[in-house]
Amino acid sequence: MALLEISIVPIGTDSPSIGDYVAEVVKVCDQHGLKYNLTDMGTIIEGDADTIFSAAKMLHELPFNRGISRVLTHLTIDDRRDKAIHLEDEVKAVQDRLTQKAA
Amino acid sequence: MALLEISIVPIGTDSPSIGDYVAEVVKVCDQHGLKYNLTDMGTIIEGDADTIFSAAKMLHELPFNRGISRVLTHLTIDDRRDKAIHLEDEVKAVQDRLTQKAA
Amino acid sequence: MALLEISIVPIGTDSPSIGDYVAEVVKVCDQHGLKYNLTDMGTIIEGDADTIFSAAKMLHELPFNRGISRVLTHLTIDDRRDKAIHLEDEVKAVQDRLTQKAA
Amino acid sequence: MALLEISIVPIGTDSPSIGDYVAEVVKVCDQHGLKYNLTDMGTIIEGDADTIFSAAKMLHELPFNRGISRVLTHLTIDDRRDKAIHLEDEVKAVQDRLTQKAA
Repeated sequence: MALLEISIVPIGTDSPSIGDYVAEVVKVCDQHGLKYNLTDMGTIIEGDADTIFSAAKMLHELPFNRGISRVLTHLTIDDRRDKAIHLEDEVKAVQDRLTQKAA
Repeated sequence: MALLEISIVPIGTDSPSIGDYVAEVVKVCDQHGLKYNLTDMGTIIEGDADTIFSAAKMLHELPFNRGISRVLTHLTIDDRRDKAIHLEDEVKAVQDRLTQKAA
Repeated sequence: MALLEISIVPIGTDSPSIGDYVAEVVKVCDQHGLKYNLTDMGTIIEGDADTIFSAAKMLHELPFNRGISRVLTHLTIDDRRDKAIHLEDEVKAVQDRLTQKAA
Repeated sequence: MALLEISIVPIGTDSPSIGDYVAEVVKVCDQHGLKYNLTDMGTIIEGDADTIFSAAKMLHELPFNRGISRVLTHLTIDDRRDKAIHLEDEVKAVQDRLTQKAA
């Protein structure tokens, strides 16, 4: 299982705000039943390699459908095959370590 | 104001787990009074350009202090000078859009 | 047309050197007739969205085939639909601007 | 020694072309005597941690000086303390491996 962080940036908008484009990414994730967390810097999606690469390809197209002619998409994939990674696992693992050290 | 997402990856560890290194990043952020959110894919820090670049430089060194000889650090900076960006702002702005559209 | 920069990092390799894994990426690009440029920080592949996403998915698997259990893959896609982007285009466009300014 | 790949993206430019901004990054690197390679996806700068972090901070400001109000800057740092990394080293190391394997 893997986690994919995706950030899709439309280039050439006449405003510095890209919230509408991010909202559409979230909406399409919901429509496709993807498991995700929205952060201030991207959307983190959970799934196996097939799921995350097809999600990335679908989501990358969204700004073009709204007339944007250039898109910069950043993808970071953390893929473990020794154990499953689910949303919140990494955060919990780090918090557990910090709690142990503080004890 | 800006948001910095930082991911610091030690290369050459003999284990696929890097949770200890991430826990140390979080601990040092706390020690230095930095405002941050931990996600499954990185740590998002809030601050002006001076704050985030000095934080990045300090945090990048941490694995070397533990004997690691190679580190890959990824930094994404979202910096707006037309309005302040604080942690959770982008998430809230997107959620507000989705709520409006659903109404 | 788009350019994809891909960097595939095996985690838990017990050695700071990952050159063997990068060499395999290049070899597989050659075997599949992909157009690419190797840089010090990644491999830049040229193609339409179908080509680059299928290349990314294929290349991401390579370290797992060699027994690695965790892989961090970074992908940056610069995709323009108003004009074709080919390898070396961006570099040439910047150099032309610098030459004009110097003239 | 380390290699820094930097990509500075102005948001809200009203045009999909960002070549002028990249040309300015290159010009300022020259003015400051930085060792760099320009690629289609970013500028790779060589130096120790002090050099690359101060270069990143200086270059990140450039679009703001031209009236841009939002900038997304991506930095990837490959930092080795077991041996020096210079521009072209990684490319040469991979090419040497491929030549050996072909022999």
